[in-house]
Amino acid sequence: MTRILKGAEVVEALNARIAAEVEELNAAGVVPTLAIVRVGERGDDISYERGAGKRAEKVGVAVRNVLLPAEVSEDALVSQIEALNADASVHGVLLFRPLPVRINEERVRNVLASAKDVDGITDLSLAGVFAGTQTGFAPCTPAACVEILEHFGYRLEGKNAVVVGRSLVVGKPVAMMLLGRNATVTLAHSRTADLKQVVAAADIVIAAVGRAEMLNGDYLSEGQVVIDVGINVTEQGALVGDVDFAHAEGTVAAITPVPGGVGTVTTSVLMKQVVQAARRSVV
Amino acid sequence: MTRILKGAEVVEALNARIAAEVEELNAAGVVPTLAIVRVGERGDDISYERGAGKRAEKVGVAVRNVLLPAEVSEDALVSQIEALNADASVHGVLLFRPLPVRINEERVRNVLASAKDVDGITDLSLAGVFAGTQTGFAPCTPAACVEILEHFGYRLEGKNAVVVGRSLVVGKPVAMMLLGRNATVTLAHSRTADLKQVVAAADIVIAAVGRAEMLNGDYLSEGQVVIDVGINVTEQGALVGDVDFAHAEGTVAAITPVPGGVGTVTTSVLMKQVVQAARRSVV
Repeated sequence: MTRILKGAEVVEALNARIAAEVEELNAAGVVPTLAIVRVGERGDDISYERGAGKRAEKVGVAVRNVLLPAEVSEDALVSQIEALNADASVHGVLLFRPLPVRINEERVRNVLASAKDVDGITDLSLAGVFAGTQTGFAPCTPAACVEILEHFGYRLEGKNAVVVGRSLVVGKPVAMMLLGRNATVTLAHSRTADLKQVVAAADIVIAAVGRAEMLNGDYLSEGQVVIDVGINVTEQGALVGDVDFAHAEGTVAAITPVPGGVGTVTTSVLMKQVVQAARRSVV
Repeated sequence: MTRILKGAEVVEALNARIAAEVEELNAAGVVPTLAIVRVGERGDDISYERGAGKRAEKVGVAVRNVLLPAEVSEDALVSQIEALNADASVHGVLLFRPLPVRINEERVRNVLASAKDVDGITDLSLAGVFAGTQTGFAPCTPAACVEILEHFGYRLEGKNAVVVGRSLVVGKPVAMMLLGRNATVTLAHSRTADLKQVVAAADIVIAAVGRAEMLNGDYLSEGQVVIDVGINVTEQGALVGDVDFAHAEGTVAAITPVPGGVGTVTTSVLMKQVVQAARRSVV
């Protein structure tokens, strides 16, 4: 029987750990604080902001919302980030992207101090993920994938992990994080020959291609643990992952559902990283 | 019959291309210049410096040798690098490492401007390699591996490449560079289960483990193209690679020799990157 790796269970455990760490920090006079920087009034950003606010409140992380008009200048945005860098009461910064096209996003994101880069958007955080060091932070989605695998007790060492998709926000960083845990890691993608065979041979599959239900029964095999990062909307308006869940269930050993899987965990990972940033700041 | 992928042939083609680019730059009044920063009198450094000097002269790259006493202070070394950053007549900087242990190497290497980081030692260069962007430069050894494959006309797209070894100077960057050329890339290492089988199934093998002749006949199969990055000295004083050359020859389709393979090409790659840095500086 296929085990359904529900995000809610991971979130519960994670939140309890975070709350305990927040208590310790509070006792030392520190309130872990996340600044959320939003430019304009995009619906997705606003809804994520609302969700993050609720999750933060639950675990005792303070949130400071920084709202800038859609027509803000690049220099003003940079100044705002520099002010947050300099503000010792702010431990982590989340900057919604994409930014308006007239703004040089590469410049802006790299202004952020890597010590406060809790969403892993700076080049220094990327270098840290690549090198496997503590420079900056990993992006929250790949970190959530690893969090789920570890929560449910899957050993990664020596396992054959296949990551399908090679984006800089999911595929590449999750590959490095699995490698750091001694998995043998294959990065597969749209140009991979025999993709079905490559995926079917894996012990652990990370699906991060962004194509609705692309990984059907041909890609899956018994005993696999499947983490589905995809969030796709079908023509019928249903929310589905990159994996054909109906075919996976009954075949693989375990799989994360969509919705209710990886996406659920990312916000808690963000809070975990804010708390880590706060801890590092008081050392 | 196994094709021997001699570095000399790659070097010749590369040097001709570099020399042509240097001529163009000279015509525009620019002499591509590499500063080589050496701390102390380590034999390896001195011999590399000498080889690089000769190679540079051959292709028309000017070299400025910066020699610092073994007891130089960290701050003095940092000031020296800052001066090279500010000097518009210097396009690339090579800093020998390891530095003396009392010096914070992470701090020192990240002082170097990524635009002049022709040996890929800064975090920004690492981020560039990871992201597949033009930030900084790749380390020369993995770049040499790709240079060899491309020189001999091996298509990488869709091929199954296995990188054995996951160091930050070879394994991880070469994996990213192969991925950027659309290979399916597996990072394997000492904890990989069934390493023999994983390597034997590859179309392209990059051996970067640093263990003399570890990849023997059990790891190799017909049709493979093998790039041997290892440079090991046997108890008998012979220079050998990570691959058991005698067993590879006659089995695989092609292999780089040791010596005379990858190591031969890295200095020319360094010169290529100095010239690239010079070209970028005049745009």
